[in-house]
Amino acid sequence: MNDILIIGTVALDTIETPFGKVEKTLGGSATYASFAASFFSNPALISVVGDDFPKNYIDLLKKRNVDIDGLKITGKTFHWDGFYEYDMNEAKTRKTELNSLEQFKVEMPERYKNTKYVFLANIDPEQQLETLRQMNKPDFAVLDTMNFWITSKRDSLMEVIKKVDVLLLNDGEARQLFKTASLVKAANEALRTGPKAVIIKKGEHGALLFTKNKHFSAPSYPLENIKDPTGCGDCFGGAFIGYLAKTKDLSEPNFRKAIIYGSVVASHNAEDFGLNRLKHLTMNDIEKRYKEFQDIREF
Amino acid sequence: MNDILIIGTVALDTIETPFGKVEKTLGGSATYASFAASFFSNPALISVVGDDFPKNYIDLLKKRNVDIDGLKITGKTFHWDGFYEYDMNEAKTRKTELNSLEQFKVEMPERYKNTKYVFLANIDPEQQLETLRQMNKPDFAVLDTMNFWITSKRDSLMEVIKKVDVLLLNDGEARQLFKTASLVKAANEALRTGPKAVIIKKGEHGALLFTKNKHFSAPSYPLENIKDPTGCGDCFGGAFIGYLAKTKDLSEPNFRKAIIYGSVVASHNAEDFGLNRLKHLTMNDIEKRYKEFQDIREF
Repeated sequence: MNDILIIGTVALDTIETPFGKVEKTLGGSATYASFAASFFSNPALISVVGDDFPKNYIDLLKKRNVDIDGLKITGKTFHWDGFYEYDMNEAKTRKTELNSLEQFKVEMPERYKNTKYVFLANIDPEQQLETLRQMNKPDFAVLDTMNFWITSKRDSLMEVIKKVDVLLLNDGEARQLFKTASLVKAANEALRTGPKAVIIKKGEHGALLFTKNKHFSAPSYPLENIKDPTGCGDCFGGAFIGYLAKTKDLSEPNFRKAIIYGSVVASHNAEDFGLNRLKHLTMNDIEKRYKEFQDIREF
Repeated sequence: MNDILIIGTVALDTIETPFGKVEKTLGGSATYASFAASFFSNPALISVVGDDFPKNYIDLLKKRNVDIDGLKITGKTFHWDGFYEYDMNEAKTRKTELNSLEQFKVEMPERYKNTKYVFLANIDPEQQLETLRQMNKPDFAVLDTMNFWITSKRDSLMEVIKKVDVLLLNDGEARQLFKTASLVKAANEALRTGPKAVIIKKGEHGALLFTKNKHFSAPSYPLENIKDPTGCGDCFGGAFIGYLAKTKDLSEPNFRKAIIYGSVVASHNAEDFGLNRLKHLTMNDIEKRYKEFQDIREF
C-alpha cells in the first residue's frame, strides 16, 4: 500500500560537471524524490515520459518499489541538458526540451486519491494545484519548486504555497520569491502565507527549518568530492517526507530528524552522477551517516 | 595579568549599509577582537593609532579592561571607508588610508613577551611573523587574515600559517588561498601545512572546524536584522581565543564550545553599527544566546 504520492518530472538528463559527463541518464524531480523516499516508505509516482524512455529505467524504479501506475507514456521524454561550473552551486541550463511534459495534465489513478502524504516535487505549479484538487484532502503536503516557476508562474505558485503544510526551497529562491536578502524575513513571510513550516535548503551549507516559534539549523556534511549535485534537493524532499510517512509523527522535533535524513540521502546522492550512488545505497549507509551528522553538530 | 596578546589594526571606520551610515567610528581587527575577548579574559593589544585618535575611544578600550600599553600613537589613524550592498555578505572598500599603519613595526613591551595565548588578528603577515619572533614561544597562536594579504603577501602569509596552532579564514579566502572550490580540500591542505585546526567562517551560514580526524559544523544564528557585519570575523576570533584562555583547555571538544562563543559574540555584533552592540553586551546575554545555539542544532 502506498503511503506517499509524488508528482514531479521524470527526465532524461545530460549532465556535465568538472568531474565528467553523462548523457540521457535517468533524472527528474519525481525520480530522485521517489528513490529517496523509497528507503523509508512506499511512494507512488505521477508523471509522464515518452515512448523513447528506456525499459531499464522503468525497471530501476520498480526495483525500488516505486508504484508507477501514475506514469503516463506519450510522445518524447522531457530532456534537460545542463552543466555545473567550478563551484557547483548552481546548475546552468544548455537546453530544455519539454516534449511530452508540455501537454502533461495530471490524471489521478483512483486508488491514489486517498494517499495521506503528498510531495509536490518541482513541476509546473498548475499541475501541483491540480494534484491537490483531484485528491481527497491529504493529511500532509510538502511543496518544492524552482526559480523558473517563481519567475514565470508566481501567482499559481503562491496559490499552492497557501495550501501546503511545508514549503521547501533553496536560499536563492527564498530571497527571490519574498524579495528580501534576509532568509529569516523570507521564511517569516512564507509562514504568514499558510505553511506550518518552511525549510530553506542551502546546498553545502546545510538546511534551515523555520516554524512559528522555533528554529533549527541542520549541519552541512563535509563532502570532499561532490561529483554531481543534480537531484540533491529532490532527494532531500523525498527522504524528508519518506521519513515522516514512516514514523507518522508530524511534530517539530520529528521534522528535525526528517531534515537530517533528507541531508543524509542528498549528501550521498552528490557523490556520483545521476542515480549511480542511490542505486547502491543501503539503509545501513543511511543510518551510519545519520550518526555522523550527530557527531558533527555536537558541542 | 594579561592572558592573551592581540595584534591587529585599530581604525576609524566609515561604514554604510542599507540600514544607515556611521563616520569615523572605532573599528579595526584588534579592537573588535579585544572587545570580544574581554568578556572571557584579559587581552593586551599591540597596534598603532594617530594623534587624531579620539580620547573617548581610548576610554572605551580601557573600560573593557583591554591593556593598551602596546598601542603606539604616531601620525594619523588608519581610516577604512566601505559599504555593504543588499546581501551584506561582502564589504566593498571605497577608500583605505593606511596612514600610521604604513610604517608600523611591532615593538613588544617587555611584559607582553611571556603571554601564553596570541591572536594574530588581520594585519600585514610580516608584522604577524614579527610578533611571534619577539615573543617567548607562546603556548597557543591563532591566525586570522584577509583576501588582501592572500593576494599581496602570499609567501609571508604561508610562513605564518606554518607557525600557528589554529588558522581562521572565511570560505572565500579558503578557496582563494588553496585554489580549490572544495572547502574540505582547502581545509585538509591547510592542515598539511602545520596548524592543528582550521576554522572556516561562513558568515550567515555558520562556521566549520576541521582537525585531523574530526569535523564540526557550527549552526548559523537566525538574525532577522543584520545592521552592520563589520568586525564579526574579528569578534569571532577574539571570543574564540578568549574562551580558550579562560578555560585553559585546548581539546577539540572545547574548540567546539569556543566556536559557539565566537558565533554568539559575532551574531550580537552584527545587530548594530560599529561597537554599539558590544558596548552594552553582558555575559548574561552571551550565555542566553549560547543556550539558543544548543537548541537550534538539536535533533
